[in-house]
Order: sequence, then C-alpha cells, then structure tokens
Amino acid sequence: MIFNCLTIFPEMFAGFTGTSLCEKAIQKGLIEVNPVNFRDYTEDRHNRVDAYPFGGGAGMLLAPQPLFSCFEALDRKYEGKKTHSVYMSPAGQVLTQQKAADLAGYEVLNVLCGHYEGVDQRVLDHLIDEEISIGDYVLTGGELPAMVLIDCVMRYIPGVLSNGDSLAEESFSGGLLEYPQYTRPASFRGMDVPEILLSGHHKNIAAWQRERALAKTLACRPELLEQAELTAEDRKILEHLKKQP
Amino acid sequence: MIFNCLTIFPEMFAGFTGTSLCEKAIQKGLIEVNPVNFRDYTEDRHNRVDAYPFGGGAGMLLAPQPLFSCFEALDRKYEGKKTHSVYMSPAGQVLTQQKAADLAGYEVLNVLCGHYEGVDQRVLDHLIDEEISIGDYVLTGGELPAMVLIDCVMRYIPGVLSNGDSLAEESFSGGLLEYPQYTRPASFRGMDVPEILLSGHHKNIAAWQRERALAKTLACRPELLEQAELTAEDRKILEHLKKQP
Repeated sequence: MIFNCLTIFPEMFAGFTGTSLCEKAIQKGLIEVNPVNFRDYTEDRHNRVDAYPFGGGAGMLLAPQPLFSCFEALDRKYEGKKTHSVYMSPAGQVLTQQKAADLAGYEVLNVLCGHYEGVDQRVLDHLIDEEISIGDYVLTGGELPAMVLIDCVMRYIPGVLSNGDSLAEESFSGGLLEYPQYTRPASFRGMDVPEILLSGHHKNIAAWQRERALAKTLACRPELLEQAELTAEDRKILEHLKKQP
Repeated sequence: MIFNCLTIFPEMFAGFTGTSLCEKAIQKGLIEVNPVNFRDYTEDRHNRVDAYPFGGGAGMLLAPQPLFSCFEALDRKYEGKKTHSVYMSPAGQVLTQQKAADLAGYEVLNVLCGHYEGVDQRVLDHLIDEEISIGDYVLTGGELPAMVLIDCVMRYIPGVLSNGDSLAEESFSGGLLEYPQYTRPASFRGMDVPEILLSGHHKNIAAWQRERALAKTLACRPELLEQAELTAEDRKILEHLKKQP
C-alpha cells in the first residue's frame, strides 16, 4: 500500500518511517510512505502556497493552485490504482479501528496535511474524498495526525504485524480495556505480582484477567461497555463490581 | 515548560522538535522537549527493557527496573518543580482541549511512551499520575501520541502562538466546526468563491460564516452542537437548516 503525505514539512516524517514497525513494513516492501512537498508545485514566483482568506479572519489558507497541481501529478503517477484522498482536519469524522480497517483496502492513500488556518474549500470539494480527525483537539499541522493514521492503517496490511494475534488481543478489538499485566521480577522493591499469576492455573488466571479487564473498563471508560462483546458471566461480574465501593 | 519523553526510540522526535511551531517554541526558550532513552537505565546485562508477562499472553511487557530508575533520575534532576507524569495508552482518558489546558499548568511533564504489549502494572501504580489516550484506536507505540499531546499542550503556553487570537478562533474553542474558507484567486478553473465573501459587507459576511459553521457542524459532527455555545439566532438557523433536504 502506498501512502502519499502532502505536506510542506516532509522532513517531519523521517523519525516515523525510520523506526520500529513502519521501518520494517517499508523494508519488507509492504508499504511505501512518500512525503510529497506540495510547495514544489506552486506557480507563485515567491514560492508561496498560502494566501489571506476572503472575508477576513486571522491567519492564512492553503491556496488551490499548488494542491490541484500536486494531486494531478499523483493521479498521473498512480493511474489505475484504487486511490482515496483524505484531509486531516479536526472537522472530520473521528478515526476508529473500523475506519482504519476500511482504508487498508485502498492501493493508494493520499493524505493532505493542513497547516496555517486551513485550506481553500475548493480543494476539499474537488480533491478530497473525506476529512478525518484523530480527536477533538487542535494541533499545529496535519503531519502528526497523518502519521497516526498511517500507523493505525498499516497494522491491517497482511504481513506488517509479525504475530497474527496482536491485532485481536489488543485494546478495543474485543471492546474492553486490557487487564493489568506484570512481568519479572515477581517481587520488585516490595511490590509483588498478584499471586494468582504465579499459580500456573490457566483457567483461574484467565478468569482473573477477564474480571480485571471488566473492572478496568468499568472504572476508566464505562461507555465502552455498551459496545463490548459481553457474555452472561461477564454481565454477572459487572453487576458484582458495581456493588463494590 | 519541560517535556521529558521516556522512550526507546528517541530519534522519532527529531522531525517534530526540528520543524514549525515546536522548533520556534524551543528556540524562544519557552519549552524543552527531551527524549529520554530509558534503555540507558537498564541493569540487565543484555540491555533488555522488556520481559514476558506472568500468566501468559502474546508479546512482551516493559519491565519495572529501567523505568523506576529512569523516573528517579528525572525526579532528582527536576527536584522542586511542579511535575506530572502520564502514560500514553488507549486505556486512558481521551485527550481534550480542557485536559491540554490543565496540563500546561505544570512545570515538568514526563510522558512515558509504551511499546510492545504494554507496561508492568507496578509502573502505572507507582510512577504514573494518569493515563491519557489520543483516541480509540491502536497504535504501535506511544511516541506519536506523546508528540500529539505536546503539540496540543504547548499551544497554551504564553508566547508559543504568535497571534493571541489563534487559540480562540480555531475549531472547538467555540464548540462549532470552522466555516468554509476561501482564498485567491476568486475564480480558479471555473470554481468561484461565494460572491458574498467578495462583497466587503462585513455584517453579511459574518452572518454567512456563522450559518455555514452551523451547517457544517450539523452535517459532519451533530453531537458537538449539544455542547456548543449557541445564541437564540443560532437555534433559529439550525431549525431552518434541519428542514432543508
């Protein structure tokens, strides 16, 4: 899968593409992450990509010409591929696992990273398929959101995760927060791992983990329980937990 | 304000700290962003920072010793400063503008970036004040979320934004999505800017912008309207918009 990140700060992506899972996915040839500097496409003789908004307001907007030219160049380069173009914006639909899974079905994902106060509406109307937000907060530019989106989407591409279980076992895929986890040493400065985890009794351990996952979700993110996949036993445990102080 | 990012991938931060608003805030001496490699604190002779979880489960966990040693070194270095320590985790409270504003009140923010399957619970119980999530999706590590958090928080530090209005005018501060914006040229390849924006009639323009902000919020993120600051006139406009096809 090819990710083209349209940005005026292409150097922001090197730390992400050069480390950890993203680096490995690129090395395996499973993904490409191409920062594309749309300033290279401006016809302005001062190399500008932004201008003042009509009707007033603070700050500058990304102007149409450089972005139309840049998107057209990408369209020519990837002609015939199943392509989708998104704009990272707090006005977009908030990213979910399901959205990430859906986006992993495209061959080319163009990700426009905004800056300044926003982008000319004609760009959004004619070049962008959807606006995506990573959350209800304001950031300086779309580059960090673009990397968050790519990280989330690439995990759905077969071969990117080395352990096939990882997607399913992690937070959210089952709708509950993860239970508390412990590793060696069993006792660290007088802080002990719960005894049951050292018992070797797999059934009891699994029951403890499920109960703790339910308790953590109830305490920290109760709204997730409404959408979680719960058994009758889970519901009994939750009733019991709710009665505790 | 000092941001310490505890990570095993310190090189991921260079693109963020070396560009745009973050670079300027550092150059002005308003913030420090220090990637701290907690692998430097491990006493393991193979330099490991992770180990298998007790009780089974896929993947590895960050072990207690390197993190306890690293946090203690930071506590000594920043003794007497108003310090807060967070863990970036999908199990945390989801980041909001209000949370970012609150965090900007600390002198030192330690941000633990998880990796692998998670972190030993004793670290969370004894070293971390709160878990923060940037959204309900799974990422490879806590580094991108840490940068998102820092970007969001630093904007509340006086002097970081050059235009005092920027925080207030942007999306969310008033509870509505931003209205569509347009810049030069007024006509681009037959796509025209709405005439009213070229009229110079400020009162009409402001009314049009408010109506479009309401319409965009109603269309894209209707749930935001419940918390938005709305006038009686806004409510009338919304009633009218809802009747349109």
